[in-house]
Amino acid sequence: MTVIYPGSFDPVTNGHLNIIERCSQKFDKVIVVILNNPAKNPMFTSEERKKLLQEVTKDYDNVEIDIYSGLLVDYAKQKGVSVIVKGLRAVSDFEYEMQMACMNRHLENNLETFFLMTNNKYSFLSSSLVKEVAKFGGDISRVVPNVVEDAINEKLKGV
Amino acid sequence: MTVIYPGSFDPVTNGHLNIIERCSQKFDKVIVVILNNPAKNPMFTSEERKKLLQEVTKDYDNVEIDIYSGLLVDYAKQKGVSVIVKGLRAVSDFEYEMQMACMNRHLENNLETFFLMTNNKYSFLSSSLVKEVAKFGGDISRVVPNVVEDAINEKLKGV
Amino acid sequence: MTVIYPGSFDPVTNGHLNIIERCSQKFDKVIVVILNNPAKNPMFTSEERKKLLQEVTKDYDNVEIDIYSGLLVDYAKQKGVSVIVKGLRAVSDFEYEMQMACMNRHLENNLETFFLMTNNKYSFLSSSLVKEVAKFGGDISRVVPNVVEDAINEKLKGV
Amino acid sequence: MTVIYPGSFDPVTNGHLNIIERCSQKFDKVIVVILNNPAKNPMFTSEERKKLLQEVTKDYDNVEIDIYSGLLVDYAKQKGVSVIVKGLRAVSDFEYEMQMACMNRHLENNLETFFLMTNNKYSFLSSSLVKEVAKFGGDISRVVPNVVEDAINEKLKGV
Amino acid sequence: MTVIYPGSFDPVTNGHLNIIERCSQKFDKVIVVILNNPAKNPMFTSEERKKLLQEVTKDYDNVEIDIYSGLLVDYAKQKGVSVIVKGLRAVSDFEYEMQMACMNRHLENNLETFFLMTNNKYSFLSSSLVKEVAKFGGDISRVVPNVVEDAINEKLKGV
Amino acid sequence: MTVIYPGSFDPVTNGHLNIIERCSQKFDKVIVVILNNPAKNPMFTSEERKKLLQEVTKDYDNVEIDIYSGLLVDYAKQKGVSVIVKGLRAVSDFEYEMQMACMNRHLENNLETFFLMTNNKYSFLSSSLVKEVAKFGGDISRVVPNVVEDAINEKLKGV
Repeated sequence: MTVIYPGSFDPVTNGHLNIIERCSQKFDKVIVVILNNPAKNPMFTSEERKKLLQEVTKDYDNVEIDIYSGLLVDYAKQKGVSVIVKGLRAVSDFEYEMQMACMNRHLENNLETFFLMTNNKYSFLSSSLVKEVAKFGGDISRVVPNVVEDAINEKLKGV
Repeated sequence: MTVIYPGSFDPVTNGHLNIIERCSQKFDKVIVVILNNPAKNPMFTSEERKKLLQEVTKDYDNVEIDIYSGLLVDYAKQKGVSVIVKGLRAVSDFEYEMQMACMNRHLENNLETFFLMTNNKYSFLSSSLVKEVAKFGGDISRVVPNVVEDAINEKLKGV
Repeated sequence: MTVIYPGSFDPVTNGHLNIIERCSQKFDKVIVVILNNPAKNPMFTSEERKKLLQEVTKDYDNVEIDIYSGLLVDYAKQKGVSVIVKGLRAVSDFEYEMQMACMNRHLENNLETFFLMTNNKYSFLSSSLVKEVAKFGGDISRVVPNVVEDAINEKLKGV
Repeated sequence: MTVIYPGSFDPVTNGHLNIIERCSQKFDKVIVVILNNPAKNPMFTSEERKKLLQEVTKDYDNVEIDIYSGLLVDYAKQKGVSVIVKGLRAVSDFEYEMQMACMNRHLENNLETFFLMTNNKYSFLSSSLVKEVAKFGGDISRVVPNVVEDAINEKLKGV
Repeated sequence: MTVIYPGSFDPVTNGHLNIIERCSQKFDKVIVVILNNPAKNPMFTSEERKKLLQEVTKDYDNVEIDIYSGLLVDYAKQKGVSVIVKGLRAVSDFEYEMQMACMNRHLENNLETFFLMTNNKYSFLSSSLVKEVAKFGGDISRVVPNVVEDAINEKLKGV
Repeated sequence: MTVIYPGSFDPVTNGHLNIIERCSQKFDKVIVVILNNPAKNPMFTSEERKKLLQEVTKDYDNVEIDIYSGLLVDYAKQKGVSVIVKGLRAVSDFEYEMQMACMNRHLENNLETFFLMTNNKYSFLSSSLVKEVAKFGGDISRVVPNVVEDAINEKLKGV
């Protein structure tokens, strides 16, 4: 079975990586797709986010990184994939994801979403919290991979 | 009994329409009021939203559409109405609406809010989700009335 | 409009009374119905609960107390009433009540449930908490009417 | 991939059936396992529940029904399966299931739980609510399969 | 400052112990009190629970174990303590504890409750889940102290 | 024990003041710190917010007001304080605060957060709701101190 793991990944955290690793063990192939949202103002371009994801997943042979601008249901159809994977951290996630899963099944009846509980070691983690902490010089070395930590610090220096 | 059903309605969805229809059956009169919030950046002007609401509710004799800029409690007082109606979809709605209902009763002790559970067929629906899906060419024909679908597509062409 | 306010009322608290009072002001008639659940082990018989409810609502001319064993939808049909009223205190209430409201509408399409937010002064109140506090000699004089306080103390002496 | 869908199924509802059907389409094999909990007082024996499940899933070739007394993790190990499937209806489900998924992964690190959102048509459904409604003569024909409706009515006559 | 940490502790888990340890570091004295609830059917008598708590907290000089039958507010008054400490794991905890904290402040205006977030390593833990897992022979060695594991196994053998 | 009570306080409400008052009674010293967030667009400058806080807390000898730009954990370390105090109003607060408390303990293991339940009289209050109501001429005299009401009205006139 091939699954799609969509997100912003601005940037990838250890929480995302834990989901990718677990999916890589259970599924034949995992397509991690960066959904391009023109409205948001990201820290990293989608190309930079792709590179970081490729770097931190290079040891997983069945993981592939991609970028898409458009509806997730259209991407899934195009790839011939009918299963989405999402991580759930908290109740607020749950309600938003329930909306999205319903809407996606409404748009494409065959499309299924599997939710995985985030490892509770990472249940407090989000890309935006990581960026906020880094902005004020906090230590993010245990919540993102080293290469991501370096990339964030590089970005912040440039500001 | 006359009730007020307030909202942004940018634009009206089948979820809103379901609440209006159910209110229309239970109450003598339903005033649907578009609250003008200058801070937000809407897709439709309040006049356009009013027209769409009038179009989709034209079969309900006891439904009236209005626009107001100001506090809901002041509008209610002005209209001589003491009951607000709101739809509840999810836990996050619940907490926000609880705050608003408490604040409104604090501002005007006699003002009561009745909450109706959204039909679970529409529990995943929101105006902003509809607009996001439409922006990427997704099919919204089953979640908004036809006239609204056309109006959204018209707007998106113009961008 | 006539509404039905169902519950166990074992016994009625100031939180229930606040809902009854607010409904009495908005609706033509309020039928408070004690739903008899043979499975539960109540402190008061349904007849005793009815008497306490009658006593504490005697000043509201449009409030009527009743007892019913069976489905709420059947009671509503029998009474010719199509609106149920329920109080909402918290998120856990919300989910349970959402289930019940959906099931009731499923059983009888025309039956509508209006939810009122509990006055936040009473948002921590429940009949079972009151009984637990009373059992250990705690002061319940501000959370139940006097006549209910006396009735609880009478019951506890008898144990 | 083979998955295990555990539960009490006392009795199976259309909500359960919807999850089984969707799993049957996505996975090679679905083992529906009735977890025997001696503490509970069920309406149907585990053998009766198994028969009902077999009856309503007879058209799905890759679905198998089983009964187990013990820890789910031990059953999964014994079957050589490393993926559990659960349905999520609401926030209260979410928190309980999160606890169970964490505990199960703690007991067996390789065991993964995939959560599927219940179809919102059935988000109000539970076996216990069905039994309660049936007890009072309510119509359950649209929320359980016919054979289950008959079995419940048979049981209730016998009481 | 002296604080009271109340609970059932049937039996103490690593989650409880983590709260006790953190309180021991911040407060002058921590009174862990086992609230005797005659209605519940515990695995351990309150005396046995006290012994286990004493054993696992013996290295904390400022921690004291006690048993009380009655209202927590009365116990606090008797001890001259005005701060309660509670652990919060999840949303369902939050709502129940909010009710209790409100009720307690209502009963004794000066009584304050401080909530500590449970370490997310233990956010899935509860005494009842531990007992359920142990009953079916699951490994509980990492979620309770050794002495508690032995005591549970001893109890289960005796059944 | 000295504690830090952090926030935006744009501006201080009666809800904040209630937390400060309760902390002032329980702790030796309370440092209220205005966290400067350059991203937000506040109504009051941090200096104005400090003056309002000083004015409304002038009767509490052990309360001190401060401003900080940076990570809360760094401020706490600098002040030699290891306890943060936060108010909890609702489930959405709970999840956000849980994230923050986890992140802060991750950044500084010794840093503890004590949560206090907001007085239910103020559970609907937030600085942004107050500003929204004031903007439309609503009465805010019972939800903020007089001096804050005047300051808001002054600001709104200037717009």
